[in-house]
Amino acid sequence: MVHKRNEGKDDCCEKTHHDSQYSPGYYWLGNDTLKVPLVLHKENRERLVSRMLTNHKDTIEKNSFILLEGGKDEMSYDTDHEPLFKQERYFFWTFGCEIPGCYGLVGLDDKATSVLAIPKLPADYATWMGEIHSKEYYKSIFLVDHVIYTEDLQDYLKGNNASTLYTILGLNTDSGATFKEPEFPGMKENFKVNNSVLFPEIAECRVIKTPKEVEVIRYAVDASVSAHKHVMRTVKVGMKEYECESEFVHHAYKNWGCRNVGYTCICAANKNSAVLHYGHAGEPNASTISEHGFCLFDMGAEYHSYTADITCSFPATGKFSPEQRVIYNAVLDASVAVIQAMRPGVNWIDMHKLAERCILEALLKANILKGDLLDLVKNGIGSVFFPHGLGHFLGLNTHDVGGFVGDCKPKTNSLRTTRDLKANMVITVEPGCYFIKHLLTQALADPIKVQFFNQQELQKYVNIGGVRIEDDVLVTENGCENLSKDLPRTCEEIEEFMKKY
Amino acid sequence: MVHKRNEGKDDCCEKTHHDSQYSPGYYWLGNDTLKVPLVLHKENRERLVSRMLTNHKDTIEKNSFILLEGGKDEMSYDTDHEPLFKQERYFFWTFGCEIPGCYGLVGLDDKATSVLAIPKLPADYATWMGEIHSKEYYKSIFLVDHVIYTEDLQDYLKGNNASTLYTILGLNTDSGATFKEPEFPGMKENFKVNNSVLFPEIAECRVIKTPKEVEVIRYAVDASVSAHKHVMRTVKVGMKEYECESEFVHHAYKNWGCRNVGYTCICAANKNSAVLHYGHAGEPNASTISEHGFCLFDMGAEYHSYTADITCSFPATGKFSPEQRVIYNAVLDASVAVIQAMRPGVNWIDMHKLAERCILEALLKANILKGDLLDLVKNGIGSVFFPHGLGHFLGLNTHDVGGFVGDCKPKTNSLRTTRDLKANMVITVEPGCYFIKHLLTQALADPIKVQFFNQQELQKYVNIGGVRIEDDVLVTENGCENLSKDLPRTCEEIEEFMKKY
Repeated sequence: MVHKRNEGKDDCCEKTHHDSQYSPGYYWLGNDTLKVPLVLHKENRERLVSRMLTNHKDTIEKNSFILLEGGKDEMSYDTDHEPLFKQERYFFWTFGCEIPGCYGLVGLDDKATSVLAIPKLPADYATWMGEIHSKEYYKSIFLVDHVIYTEDLQDYLKGNNASTLYTILGLNTDSGATFKEPEFPGMKENFKVNNSVLFPEIAECRVIKTPKEVEVIRYAVDASVSAHKHVMRTVKVGMKEYECESEFVHHAYKNWGCRNVGYTCICAANKNSAVLHYGHAGEPNASTISEHGFCLFDMGAEYHSYTADITCSFPATGKFSPEQRVIYNAVLDASVAVIQAMRPGVNWIDMHKLAERCILEALLKANILKGDLLDLVKNGIGSVFFPHGLGHFLGLNTHDVGGFVGDCKPKTNSLRTTRDLKANMVITVEPGCYFIKHLLTQALADPIKVQFFNQQELQKYVNIGGVRIEDDVLVTENGCENLSKDLPRTCEEIEEFMKKY
Repeated sequence: MVHKRNEGKDDCCEKTHHDSQYSPGYYWLGNDTLKVPLVLHKENRERLVSRMLTNHKDTIEKNSFILLEGGKDEMSYDTDHEPLFKQERYFFWTFGCEIPGCYGLVGLDDKATSVLAIPKLPADYATWMGEIHSKEYYKSIFLVDHVIYTEDLQDYLKGNNASTLYTILGLNTDSGATFKEPEFPGMKENFKVNNSVLFPEIAECRVIKTPKEVEVIRYAVDASVSAHKHVMRTVKVGMKEYECESEFVHHAYKNWGCRNVGYTCICAANKNSAVLHYGHAGEPNASTISEHGFCLFDMGAEYHSYTADITCSFPATGKFSPEQRVIYNAVLDASVAVIQAMRPGVNWIDMHKLAERCILEALLKANILKGDLLDLVKNGIGSVFFPHGLGHFLGLNTHDVGGFVGDCKPKTNSLRTTRDLKANMVITVEPGCYFIKHLLTQALADPIKVQFFNQQELQKYVNIGGVRIEDDVLVTENGCENLSKDLPRTCEEIEEFMKKY
């Protein structure tokens, strides 16, 4: 039986998918997982070329190509251990292809002529790695116009009188890292290379998701929502945090085909919920969930390389203490206010400020803080409790690209974008309120800041750790859609949900 | 209650381990997982220094140090996505420390004075990554003599009148990759560096496991055996291969604390069982297990960075067909013969030949091959069916180091070591028999090889795919111990075991 989410999609894959994740034009992991039509990437190519031709029509010469280089298989240190390959994301966005060692060309012409260059494999690849497929096979899978071997890349370009190659080089304005420019033998000698124009254009294309991309993200979010609920049903006082990580990952993989998570699972309980990026190798989710332990679980599964990024916060017992309820509701107020306000044209800095105000108001009401709201804001009390940005674009990267291109305003502290919202952006909304020892110590040592704190009341809360509520939100024409809305989110919903198990 | 395997171990960790994987001198993930005494690494340091001083006493100057550089946190491509950190293995063997960005020194003196150099973290590390611990804290955990900051490395060495620094540089003879020499500001200007002596000595030390190392490997093997059995109970015709991967990984993590696997899981069913390294990103365990599908599942869990490497082969239905039984028993014969013959002094090339002979004999008996056994061997028919080496050292790497140092013989085709066995080596025994299309086609096209094949009989077997039986074996003083012996291994045991579920 075809799952509802796959209705109307090409039936051809039912048979061929017994043997592979691919069939002509589709990626699919069987069972009830999503059939992804790989025409998604053809649409991406067409969008990119159209944007390039529109914005740079006076400078793009005839026979110009976009050139992208995919990721390479790499070994760990000096060993022959090969970590599971993850494709470079610009390349994946453009071609949807998971093969290491590829290049891709997209002609800057009306047809957005696409060429996938794959490595020519030695015969013994078949013994170790699997069947060696023909160029025609890959052409049918990935819906490109031509498949060639990487060794023929230079000849192909010469044969097509290639003039300028457009590449990505330089600062990724989101991560601060530098993009390594593609190269192949003979490139610089034989072709003009323009590496300044492509990055902002392709980044902007990646910001605006197509309906097909949204469908894949929606699926990754559904998988993650389902796995978070599974964890909420499973969690018990006395469990190790990593058992929850294991439950999440297994649920998302076995039932939803998500082999990877978009980022290392943060399964923070007790005081660890105040550590924003807990869960890394140095803090490997190794604590025992204590009786009054508050859980902050930030985990997102990936499908066809698109990822979700969701945080659920709840008491391990399933029953909020009065203090936990106060802080949770402060964050929930912020989340609800932001999601209600989100629509095209709204600036993200304003959304961050809105969230901060909601949290500060709630802390004032709870008598943890005192004074005037505007004074609190002005004196930076918000970032003592809410020291990270409200959210970030989401897509093939957890922190997706494009936060600082186009109409962005200057970077302000920890915000990951400063742009106005547009329809079909997907962005996380993740207000948080934390009791972080060193930030509180700093604030209380500051003669101006300290006067806003009611330290006696504050003491009742410091052991909560922190609360974060993170949803994945699609901006629509008139507002927005919370893709992760099926999670229990109010204290009452959470208590009701966890009571059953 | 203390688990049997942890009896007699320091009780101190019971409390502190609620909050961490560490307590002074121990690594432990709670519940029934293994408490690893970190004195294991102190013993490693002492062994290494003692070996260096013995073998190079005439050339090692006073105040010489071994210098190792740990791994660094790295981002994926140009993003800020940080894959889960894995420590460089020489460094880990010496210090047992999972922190990125460290250096380590071991004095080439009688006390094997140890210095762990850790990065000085910025204050906001506490907000994002977790508590910043003191140097004293790490000293107590890792049982080193001194902890310093990396920025003080040069001063420390100067203050101790360091003469020569011994480093690793050059070809890793096991992987064929090149080891990147450690470096820090001022190293080459201020100190003599010897990068030719250390590699063979430290590699040899890693080959011979201490009782404490064996205990950790034994635990990783127990975890993997338990998880393989769980998969054998769970597998059903019609399941996707990746569901089995997910079951294995979850079982080993949730119940045994194994966050990582030593290598990408190979869950090969149907014809995929003839692909030796199936399961990578290009062939991601995505087939549906068919009615006559033979499963070859090669998976190993890792604990405290020591890994298991185990393969189970069985029919998905739990019932062998006559042909599957013939091939399975051919491989089992080889495995039994090798494990019976293994003891110190035996050469690994001879073990490989013994396994190959067993397999060829069985194929002759089954009438798939014809002719004289010695002629088959001489004409390379063995590697048509068994194209990989019999096994490899196992430890912190799946393909552990030291296969080609010491008394090794020249490399021969696919063997991963050519050495004589010694007590306390841990090595995999993994004979296999596969029907690999392109190898069979090659052989049948060869006028000499073709005459050994009974092609009509061969046809009955080609759809099996392949069989591999892989155990992890400790060489003892008088023979060997199969650490993975608790798996059902004969056809009868497997059928009996799988019948129950």
